[in-house]
Order: sequence, then structure tokens, then C-alpha cells
Amino acid sequence: MIAPVEPALKEAGTFMEQVLGELLPQPVGPQSRVVEAMRYATLEGGKRIRAFMVLQSGRLFGVDRRALSRVAAAVECVHAYSLVHDDLPAMDNDDLRRGKPTTHKNYDEATAILAGDALLTFAFALLSASETHPDPHVRCELVARLAQAAGSDGMIGGQMIDMVAQGEVTGIAQITRLQRLKTGALISFACEAGAVMGRASPPMRHALTNYAHDLGLAYQIADDLLDAEGDPNVMGKAVGKDQKAGKATFVTVLGAERARGQARLLANQAAAHLEVFDEKADLLRGLAAYGVNRRA
Amino acid sequence: MIAPVEPALKEAGTFMEQVLGELLPQPVGPQSRVVEAMRYATLEGGKRIRAFMVLQSGRLFGVDRRALSRVAAAVECVHAYSLVHDDLPAMDNDDLRRGKPTTHKNYDEATAILAGDALLTFAFALLSASETHPDPHVRCELVARLAQAAGSDGMIGGQMIDMVAQGEVTGIAQITRLQRLKTGALISFACEAGAVMGRASPPMRHALTNYAHDLGLAYQIADDLLDAEGDPNVMGKAVGKDQKAGKATFVTVLGAERARGQARLLANQAAAHLEVFDEKADLLRGLAAYGVNRRA
Repeated sequence: MIAPVEPALKEAGTFMEQVLGELLPQPVGPQSRVVEAMRYATLEGGKRIRAFMVLQSGRLFGVDRRALSRVAAAVECVHAYSLVHDDLPAMDNDDLRRGKPTTHKNYDEATAILAGDALLTFAFALLSASETHPDPHVRCELVARLAQAAGSDGMIGGQMIDMVAQGEVTGIAQITRLQRLKTGALISFACEAGAVMGRASPPMRHALTNYAHDLGLAYQIADDLLDAEGDPNVMGKAVGKDQKAGKATFVTVLGAERARGQARLLANQAAAHLEVFDEKADLLRGLAAYGVNRRA
Repeated sequence: MIAPVEPALKEAGTFMEQVLGELLPQPVGPQSRVVEAMRYATLEGGKRIRAFMVLQSGRLFGVDRRALSRVAAAVECVHAYSLVHDDLPAMDNDDLRRGKPTTHKNYDEATAILAGDALLTFAFALLSASETHPDPHVRCELVARLAQAAGSDGMIGGQMIDMVAQGEVTGIAQITRLQRLKTGALISFACEAGAVMGRASPPMRHALTNYAHDLGLAYQIADDLLDAEGDPNVMGKAVGKDQKAGKATFVTVLGAERARGQARLLANQAAAHLEVFDEKADLLRGLAAYGVNRRA
């Protein structure tokens, strides 16, 4: 039942690289520096897992791939902006990301702050344009949902808890809640966007919501395991950061073996939520397994 | 013809304080710190000139005030976010804003970065919600226009030029271009939003576009004059910053007297663009005169 996802993920990555390269503004004029930094932070980076979720979930409902790619690009822009700001000296203070100097290291802090701001803004420009969907109701719903997922009750709320309320995050319930906000909200948007665009029935939307919930947790546990055990050369960024920062993670609380078991359980559970779909969902099923077995 | 604008501006300020207080998220849960910082950066602050532009331009077309106040709030959130990020140590490094410690001084840099991000995100949440306008076409146009005004071809582009390309900004043409992006784009959005919501005819939209263009320049020259000559106690922020930074401004290039004359000329010209409207536009006419005579 579970398809090997790597070839499709690789193809989507190449496709998204081209889409982002075309959609992102071109560096012209005296403000070109910030556009170069936007492109630096977004292009040649990452596995495009969130974009893949948008493309695959929309495919379930026959949504046009070109339209989906604009929403996928918006999600990747929000993800890239969050990394640029998260890497700043005042936040996680990281020098390396995806094997390259972080944006503030390659440019400067002011440029990185502005490039992140501009990427977030650009995501909403993408969603609101008529090329994204002929129905403005759908476009407004996408804007509203992305704003909810990325805002103070979503990703930013999670970042805030991660920065200043670490002392209160000690048990699995709090770690789960932090993850739901910090990384889960955007993953949920990515998995549900295709259903919004395809005007999916409530049971089908619900299936994708549940899939995203379990998948997001499984990926976070896998990330925690990679931070604890991964190879920095394969990953292209520093590891052991959580331990150094004294952060409670799924691995520090459960131990590596139980965390690994929990990630596998959640990945299986995520795939099981998709039984309402036929073999069209095989790549989404495969994505769950891929998430917990990856090395970077 | 020109109405005294202060009482109406004061009333709008009180109204917007209440609107923003109700619309902004409430600080609950472990992420409350970022919501507190969002409210700190936005409430009890500023003259709400941009909000006033939205309210008054929408009034010309009979748009519901409650709906206008949501768009006005979105503009104030974007303005507040831009100040929070602009005040950061990596940018202008300001300690004082509107007589209060800047957001990163009152909280910390990480919280200020996140609060700015969340305010920008929240602005799009406000615009996309059905309470803002019954027609999703209008809501999408508002989102698209705000994203354009705030992005790398608008406000962020202007900020970037201001930060890193100062050496290239030496003459009136370049200063004007910088201002059009850095502060003019959001002012134009504020003046045109009411026309979008009221589905104004092209000549009426055009009148407001021209008004915003000249008004934005007049306000910027007045700001430059205040930075050169203003009283920091009245203004609640540091002055003489442009000179200290060696920045070319309308005042350094034209001299104070010619700059003052140019601001008055532009304010009169701005008011003249409104002749297509009846006395309903008197407060917008008054706003132009107010802008160049204010002391803070």
C-alpha cells in the first residue's frame, strides 16, 4: 500500500524550484538587495515537504497543478521566512542552514529581517491573486487560514513559547502543544489547502486534518531524534542544539527508543486516516513513512 | 473650504483605540507574551492618520464605518509592525517611540521580531474575514493591494534602500522615490482602500491616488523638518537622527525654508485633487494642511 515517496518528492522539489524562481520578485532597482536575500533564503533549499503536501492533497480533488503550485510557493515562502527570522542572533543565532550560511550571515541582520518580512507579505500576495483560484471565496479562505496558521495563535505563538516559556514546557502534553503551534499549524495548512481549493466534502477535509495532525507530530519527533543523533554533515546544519539549550523535547522526555516507536505509531496512524481516499493518496501515505525514516 | 481637522482626528483616534483593543488578540495561554507585545506596539500610540485616511476615504462612498474600521485597523497594524522592526538594534536602534520604550526595549529583541511578524500576519487575517466586506472580490483586492504596498516593491523596498543604499540617495528624485516606497505606499493604500470598498468610479479612484501621492510627500517633508527642528519632548522620540546618520533628506538637500515651501505647495496640490468630491472631502482637505503644520 505504501509507495516509495522519494522519486515523487524529488520531482516536486525540482518543479517547485522552477516555480519559486519564476514567482519570486526579480532583483532590480536600488532595493534589489532585499529581493536577492528573499531568493537566497527560499531557493535551492529544503526538501519542499510542505509544498509536496499542497500538491498531493490538491491532486486528490483534481485541482490544477499550476494553481496548486502558487499555494505551495506561498507555504514555502512562509516556511523560509520563519527560518530566516528564527536563525537571527536575537532568536536561535544559527550560522548554518541547509549547508549554506544563514541569511543574516550571508547579508546582514537588517537585510534578513526585511527579507523575512517581505517573504511573509509575498505569500499573501500569491494567495490573493486571481491566478491562484477563480473563486475569490476560495482565495479569501486560503488567506484567512494561512494568517491563522502563521500568526500568534499558530506558528508565531509556538515560536514565542519556544523562546521564553521553556521552563513551562516539561511534559509530553506541553511539548505536543508547542509543536502543534510552531510547526504543526503550517503543516496542517499545507495538507488542507488542496481540500479548500478542491471544495472537498467535510469528511474528506476532516481526514486530511487528522492526517496532518499525526504527520506533524511524527515529523517533529523525527526532527528531535535527528537533532539528538543526526549527522551534521548530512543535515547541513548544527545538531545537538536542543540539548545545549536545555530544551525539553520528545527525545529528552521519552528517551530515543520510545520516541522512535511513537513516531512510527503516529506515521502509521496518519496514513490510516487516509482510507477514505483511493490509491491517489498513496504518496501521502508514503510521505508519513518517509518522514520518520529520513536522515536529514 | 478647509475644515479644521483636529477634532475629527481626535475622535477617530479614540474610536480606533477601541476598535484595535477589541480586534487584536487577547493575551491568553503560554504565548501571551507575544500578544502583549503586539498590543503594546499598537495601542495608545500615534495619531492614527492612516486609519483616518481609510475612514474618511470610505465615507466619500458611503461605506459602513464598522467595516472601514477593520481595514483601518489592518493599516495601523502594518504601520505598527514596521515601526517595531525599524526600531530594532539591527535597523535604526531606537530606544524611544511615542514617548514610550520601543517594543524590544520593553520586552526583548526576539519578542519584538515575533510581535512585528504577528502584526503583519494579523493585518491579512483582518482583511480576509467576511466582516470586512460582503464581496470576496473586494476582500481579495484589499489583500493584494496591501501586500503590494507593504512588500519588496513597496514599504520593505523603501526600508532596504534607506538601510543600505544611502550613498545612492543624494538628489530630490532619489529621495522622492525612497519616500514613495518607504512611507508613500502604505499611505496610498490607506487613501485608496475606501474607494476599493465603495467600488468607486475610476476618476474618483484616480483623484484619491493623486491626493495620496502629494499628501505622502508633504508629510515626509514635514517629518524631515521635524527631525531637523522639532522638540523631542513634544514628539516623544529622538530627533536629529537623519543628520547624525548622514542621510540625505528633503531638508538637507533643499534647506529648511525651501522644504517648508515645497511641503505647503504639495499640501495645497493634494487638496486640489479632491475637487471631484463635494464637502464630504473637507476633512481630507484639512488633513493635508494639518500634515504640514503639525509639531509632532
